[in-house]
Formats: sequence, C-alpha cells, structure tokens
Amino acid sequence: MSEKPRLRIGVLGSGKGSTFAAIADARATGRLPVEISLVLSDVADAGILEQARRRGIPAQHIAPGDYRTKLDENAEAAFIETLRVARVDLIVLAGFMRILKGDFLRAFTNRVINIHPSLLPSFTGLAAWKQALEYGVKITGCTVHLVDQGIDTGRILGQSAVPVLPEDSPDSLRHRIQETEQTLYPEILRQIALGEIKLG
Amino acid sequence: MSEKPRLRIGVLGSGKGSTFAAIADARATGRLPVEISLVLSDVADAGILEQARRRGIPAQHIAPGDYRTKLDENAEAAFIETLRVARVDLIVLAGFMRILKGDFLRAFTNRVINIHPSLLPSFTGLAAWKQALEYGVKITGCTVHLVDQGIDTGRILGQSAVPVLPEDSPDSLRHRIQETEQTLYPEILRQIALGEIKLG
Repeated sequence: MSEKPRLRIGVLGSGKGSTFAAIADARATGRLPVEISLVLSDVADAGILEQARRRGIPAQHIAPGDYRTKLDENAEAAFIETLRVARVDLIVLAGFMRILKGDFLRAFTNRVINIHPSLLPSFTGLAAWKQALEYGVKITGCTVHLVDQGIDTGRILGQSAVPVLPEDSPDSLRHRIQETEQTLYPEILRQIALGEIKLG
Repeated sequence: MSEKPRLRIGVLGSGKGSTFAAIADARATGRLPVEISLVLSDVADAGILEQARRRGIPAQHIAPGDYRTKLDENAEAAFIETLRVARVDLIVLAGFMRILKGDFLRAFTNRVINIHPSLLPSFTGLAAWKQALEYGVKITGCTVHLVDQGIDTGRILGQSAVPVLPEDSPDSLRHRIQETEQTLYPEILRQIALGEIKLG
C-alpha cells in the first residue's frame, strides 16, 4: 500500500524569509508533513530565495512587471504556470508584498493562504502593527486566513494573540508579532496537511 | 496625616449585575481600593439594584423616559445630578444598555468607562460575541475603554483575550467573555484607583 501523498506547498515571499524559514525548519524536524515544492519571489535578491536555496528547495524569481502593488498580466500568468507545473496543492504567502487578483485566485480557489500581523478584522492593510500601536490596543496578534478578492477579508483559519507593552515601538511590536507568526503559521499548515482544517 | 480619599465610583447597569457583583466582591475582599458610592439603573427591577442593596450599597432606579436606546433630557439631568450629589469621581458602566450623549459626557469628561465584549476595534455595537462568532474569529475578548461620543471608540484602557472554541454557541461564548470581564474590570479599576492608569 502506498502512503498518502504529502501536501505540496508553494511559498511566495518578497522579503528576507524569516517566516518561510520557520515553515521549512518545522518541515525539516518532521513536525510539518508537507513538501515545499518551490519558493517564488517578485524580488530578485530577496532573502527568501537564498533561504530556500540553502535548504535545497527550488527557488525562482519572477519579475513582477511595471506595477508597484500587484503583478502585471504576464507576471501573473508566469506565477500561475510555474505553480501548476510544480503541482502545488496550496500556495502559502509569507511576506509577499503584492496583491493577488482575480485570475490568480480563480486558478487556485480556496488554495491560497496568508498570514496577517493583526487580529483580523482589526487593522487590515499595511503596517498593521503600527496601526494597532497608534490605536492604542493592549492586545494584537496575527491571523492566518484564506485569501479572497478583498484585502485581508478571507475566512480565518487561525489566530494568536500578542500583548502590546507600554514601552513598545513599532519595531519591537512588529518583532514580537513576527515571532508569534513563526509558531502559528507552521501549526496551521500542519492542521491543513492533516485535514483538521478543511479549506472547502 | 489624613489618608488620601478613595476613588468614589458610581455604577450604571440595566441587567442582572454580574459584572457589578464582581467589582463589589473585589472591593469587599480588599483587592480594589474604591468606594462604591451608588448604583443607578434605568430598569426598575434590574438585578443590579438588588445586588447593590444586598451589599448595603445605595441603589436607585431613574426612569429613562420615552426613548428606547438613550435617556430623555429629564432623565439625563436626573442621572447627572444624582451622580454629582454622590460626589462620584468615576462612572462605571456595567451592562448599561443606553447610549450616553453629549451633556452627560461633558458633565463627566474622561470620567466614564465601559466594558465591551470584544477586542475593540473589532465588533463594536450590540451582541459583539455573536458578531465575532459569525465572522469566524478564533480569538475575541473584552475591552475596558473610556466612553466618548462614538460607539465603543474611546481610548482603550485594558483588554483580555478569550478563545473562540469550535463548539461555541453565542451563549457559551458570551458566558466565557463575561467571566473574563469579571476579572478584567476590577483589575483596570484597581489600576485607575492606584493612578497606574491616568484617565487624562
């Protein structure tokens, strides 16, 4: 009898890749039963690509085109095609700084997840930790959610709370949230891989 | 040398008074250095009045007038006058189901606090636990905040997180949040009374 094939994930990121590293490390230690099929970035020299290559995971830069906050049509098609060729079951956004539009989401309905640095529905959009600090909340956190056509509006899959401390700066709060993300994201991925969370 | 006078609080509520009871019990056991000067209710047979009388705390019903969600002009004036005569330093809303308007808030600027059953700014308004459940968040909670002219928009003084469980009904979640409120509200009152939280 053959073993059930593992969930194949593709990770998209634009930054240094600390959240990706947490996922890859969880996989390497056997806590996360997935295959990381590939890592894609819109930024040629993103640390996430280096983090992947160092671990022997296929990593590729795809130029995003001329827009600043989304992919142009050709780039979007290239992302979709590359993920399809890699037979990816689930697309994991880990600090990917471009909004994914209709064609991409229709190609992978209910198969794109993201982590957002607030307790949604509070503080959608950019620099959520700074928004939280400026609002004056005492508790914020992070949220793993399905990506839909809205900005940070998709179904919530998991959340962790993070205290805001009196002495916090935007950077110190951001750092505390990121540390929590590095625990929450692998845990939610594990639950998806084991079928404990259904994506619909 | 005379001791610094204790903070005098007036509690306003419309319901059975479980949050008030938690505050009164914290005071009775010495954990909360305040005087509860009086309890007022817009509901003649509200349990909170009975809870107060049982503890020997002055308790009074003031008829709210003809509106359903606020006090009419005479009732508002009666609430203000009664709280002034009792020399109340801080007005503590504990399940008070009417919106307090400009005249009341101007009479007690930065001296009215409320507890709301969500992690604000998420889920303002009525039945916040039900809103949270319907949205699908995994973490909600409660928030103590200054009351300003908006609905649940005043400065946040304290928050506690409460998990949403897969089997939760609106009632079970509401109950779990209320239990947390009964810890958070006395604790924030204690910090106000000790000057650890300044109301401005």
